[in-house]
Amino acid sequence: MNTKRKKILLITTGGTIASAPGSDGLRPRTSEALSEALGSLTAHYEILVRDLMCLDSSNIQPEQWQAIARCVFAERTGCDGMVISHGTDTMAYTASMLSFMLPGIDLPVVLTGAQLPLLDPLSDGPDNLRAAFAMAASGCAGVFLAFGRKIMRGCRAVKVRASGFDAFESINSRYVAQVTGSGLVLDRRLLPKSGQTPELRDRLNQRVFLLKLTPGLEPAIFDVLVDLGYRGIVVEAFGLGGMHFLNRDLSGGIRRAVERGVSVVILSQCLYDSSDLHVYQVGRRLLEAGVIQGRDMTTEAAVTKLMWALGQECSMEEIRSLFARSLAGEITEPDPE
Amino acid sequence: MNTKRKKILLITTGGTIASAPGSDGLRPRTSEALSEALGSLTAHYEILVRDLMCLDSSNIQPEQWQAIARCVFAERTGCDGMVISHGTDTMAYTASMLSFMLPGIDLPVVLTGAQLPLLDPLSDGPDNLRAAFAMAASGCAGVFLAFGRKIMRGCRAVKVRASGFDAFESINSRYVAQVTGSGLVLDRRLLPKSGQTPELRDRLNQRVFLLKLTPGLEPAIFDVLVDLGYRGIVVEAFGLGGMHFLNRDLSGGIRRAVERGVSVVILSQCLYDSSDLHVYQVGRRLLEAGVIQGRDMTTEAAVTKLMWALGQECSMEEIRSLFARSLAGEITEPDPE
Repeated sequence: MNTKRKKILLITTGGTIASAPGSDGLRPRTSEALSEALGSLTAHYEILVRDLMCLDSSNIQPEQWQAIARCVFAERTGCDGMVISHGTDTMAYTASMLSFMLPGIDLPVVLTGAQLPLLDPLSDGPDNLRAAFAMAASGCAGVFLAFGRKIMRGCRAVKVRASGFDAFESINSRYVAQVTGSGLVLDRRLLPKSGQTPELRDRLNQRVFLLKLTPGLEPAIFDVLVDLGYRGIVVEAFGLGGMHFLNRDLSGGIRRAVERGVSVVILSQCLYDSSDLHVYQVGRRLLEAGVIQGRDMTTEAAVTKLMWALGQECSMEEIRSLFARSLAGEITEPDPE
Repeated sequence: MNTKRKKILLITTGGTIASAPGSDGLRPRTSEALSEALGSLTAHYEILVRDLMCLDSSNIQPEQWQAIARCVFAERTGCDGMVISHGTDTMAYTASMLSFMLPGIDLPVVLTGAQLPLLDPLSDGPDNLRAAFAMAASGCAGVFLAFGRKIMRGCRAVKVRASGFDAFESINSRYVAQVTGSGLVLDRRLLPKSGQTPELRDRLNQRVFLLKLTPGLEPAIFDVLVDLGYRGIVVEAFGLGGMHFLNRDLSGGIRRAVERGVSVVILSQCLYDSSDLHVYQVGRRLLEAGVIQGRDMTTEAAVTKLMWALGQECSMEEIRSLFARSLAGEITEPDPE
């Protein structure tokens, strides 16, 4: 295989990397904008291009996640790996959702993008494309995100910097690979292991609300969200998962939501470390109320996993069980005792 | 003054630092739990103690912010500096709000706490108390937060780690001081300058909602929040401040909220860097709709500043003007052109 160029499919979706100035700010363009940067890569890879959509990633929503997943699944037998160019704003959401929609995916699927358009002489796009193509040609199956010379699992990525080139970090999980003076250095212990047959499981239920707590928030919001038809609520609580119960009893609001059949997942609003509801009095009240622990998942992974699980028509107990284990590397499973 | 021990008032509010195991998890205790750690500091400082409240900081809410501000203002003439022991979960919110409620404060007010109780032999509490007392004795006026050997402005602090000892970071602003082998090393360029007369401005309006966007969020939520009586909405948008408008037009929902007199502040959900709505097409639509730019403020600072500004009965134009300038160091003001 080393003597033959690997066949890599580039799926474009828009984003800053392919954008150009318009009358009202930067606007996304198609793969034409990528052609010069791809030129230098054709010596190393056989590149196929599929222009799937042309959106600022702020406009990439559940319907687009499904379209991308279907495209990946349909094209997977015709190439050795895939790169998906995508805006940075919601790339971590798309990467997380693809991780759940494509169980057993049997080739590398690598999302990337840029903070500055390729048209800009200082763009980080060429560097990010090089890293993404190298990962796509690595033979390591799974959904990944390549940015700032680092490769991470798609379901662990968070955009932590609005404009810095180190825009994405792998949260609570080491990087799968890094680009160094030795080339692409893989940490093979971290690669997903799967004997599963690849599947497309693209159904979802988008009636999931993300609620980031602030001190003094009124518990009535939970009743309002249930009345609006939301079937899942992901709560970014304080610290290890705390929330207020004096004067305004949020745990009461949550208890009512759970009783009405809504799955409530508790995360920390701290970027790093795991939530753990067993440590404090306030956390234990929440467990009594029937909440699901989000553990060390990112918000992006928890929101997309809950939309996906609700789309598979899981019961609340099945969802609780899905959130207790890792489907795609999104949770650090506890050591066996 | 160097020959005389500085008089430092310790105000206790509860939190992990002073907590002990109870039947249902860790529960906060009063200053008795702090007495051993304070013992070693009495050689250096004259310590007065005021047990103000005894709460897990998940339960510290707007009423408690007011009680703490009133206590600081009332006691400020009787000491050289103050330390406030506080749970870590909402300490960044309290520190931000105190920064706005105490304009012109003329002595150091330093919040601190711990990730492990002082009762634990591995507690970070003694170290954090030492740093906080040193800052409180520094003569540098302002509201600060001391944690993990770093001192930061209260209105720049964010709890970024749920359990790590480096729990707090100073976001988009350098540290004011660090504890090193040379002692407390101050960066005097960063210290607040104020010739203002100290004031207590403790009124607030807590009808502010924090909305962290997810892809596909339905715009109707803005109408619901206005109907519920919220007077301010802080939006954590994508990247530089983007949000979707195709199929589900969030900018329309925002426009309706603004027309109904609600102040909408846009921040980035990225932890680092400033939002900037001028760069992309989607951001410009928001500016047209009348939103207020949150620039490089933390979420904690933006939520508390908006509650505080609404409490001063400012008009939307006055709030817009307050958000264009730094009151306590919470915004990096643009270089004069």
